[in-house]
Amino acid sequence: MAEPDAERHAEKMRKRQAAHRRTVAAKTVEKGLVIVHTGTGKGKTTAALGMAVRAIGHGMKIGVVQFVKGAMATGEKMVFDAFPDQVEFKPMGEGFTWDTQDRARDIEVTRTAWDEVKRMMADPAYDMVVADELNIVLRYEYLPVDEVLEALAARPAKTHVVITGRNAPAALIEVADLVTDMSLVKHPFREQGVKAQAGIEF
Amino acid sequence: MAEPDAERHAEKMRKRQAAHRRTVAAKTVEKGLVIVHTGTGKGKTTAALGMAVRAIGHGMKIGVVQFVKGAMATGEKMVFDAFPDQVEFKPMGEGFTWDTQDRARDIEVTRTAWDEVKRMMADPAYDMVVADELNIVLRYEYLPVDEVLEALAARPAKTHVVITGRNAPAALIEVADLVTDMSLVKHPFREQGVKAQAGIEF
Repeated sequence: MAEPDAERHAEKMRKRQAAHRRTVAAKTVEKGLVIVHTGTGKGKTTAALGMAVRAIGHGMKIGVVQFVKGAMATGEKMVFDAFPDQVEFKPMGEGFTWDTQDRARDIEVTRTAWDEVKRMMADPAYDMVVADELNIVLRYEYLPVDEVLEALAARPAKTHVVITGRNAPAALIEVADLVTDMSLVKHPFREQGVKAQAGIEF
Repeated sequence: MAEPDAERHAEKMRKRQAAHRRTVAAKTVEKGLVIVHTGTGKGKTTAALGMAVRAIGHGMKIGVVQFVKGAMATGEKMVFDAFPDQVEFKPMGEGFTWDTQDRARDIEVTRTAWDEVKRMMADPAYDMVVADELNIVLRYEYLPVDEVLEALAARPAKTHVVITGRNAPAALIEVADLVTDMSLVKHPFREQGVKAQAGIEF
């Protein structure tokens, strides 16, 4: 009785494989992508870190600038530091804005971090540039979105740029090649009183 | 004119910081979490890889089992190989099921991969276990979800488990501590004929 089932399955999978190969063959464009991770759920920054890790494995050069982190020691730094020739990692933020309580200083810090991103994006040596939590500083209007769009448009054609943070501005989504929305289904913080833990939250 | 604005901002941020601190102080539970990344968008596996990277940085021991990858060389392997004492990385799959066209063999491969996950989850030496694309094999019914729930319930209290893949079964979401749904907003594959690129897709 198993044989006909197995044969049907194999036939179905052959068709699916053929369809998949046709789809792949039709995709021939190679270009630097603008990738945005947004939404109120978790995984925006961690997915960007995962992309950086894959890029390391492919011998690419990666620049990572974090706009609102820096006060807290994060696990990713140690791993990136193991690949100093490939990864330039810059936690430029000074914690969340409620820690600094100084808007002028936040703008100044944002400007310094943005200058780093611009430098990396303009330099063809970088294959991938991650601007972590850039959406946050755009939301607070610490940086005009037009400056970001201009720098994206002017970058080398092969450079991938990954931008994270909730509330991605519509103008950024408009120019992006790939936008993923991370949304919360369940969260232990809110529902169970679980505290931030190493490897999970930072 | 700037002064009152700056003072209002500082006051607002002081209040937000105080509220944030009260929230954090109320969270005291430390426990191993069951984390699920699901949805039809991108970022499910990459966010799991990012969590593994953070865990490496915190000196944790991590097991990663990939259920449906293996045929394709992925970037993450090289990075994980740089931390052999901390990461056990097992790409156990044989490609997608349309490549194998053999359901009996898919079930066998799934079983071998699942045995690895069970071994890691039962061993208190592992701080985090990633079962990448486990939801896919559950969806195809290559593995009964009850076996997964049983192994999760029996694991050491501090072990984090990260499970990825679209179509997470309701029974798994029910027991999970943190569930994130990744959804597609824009995708260059479908809209622009862009092919899979190193560092982005693999």
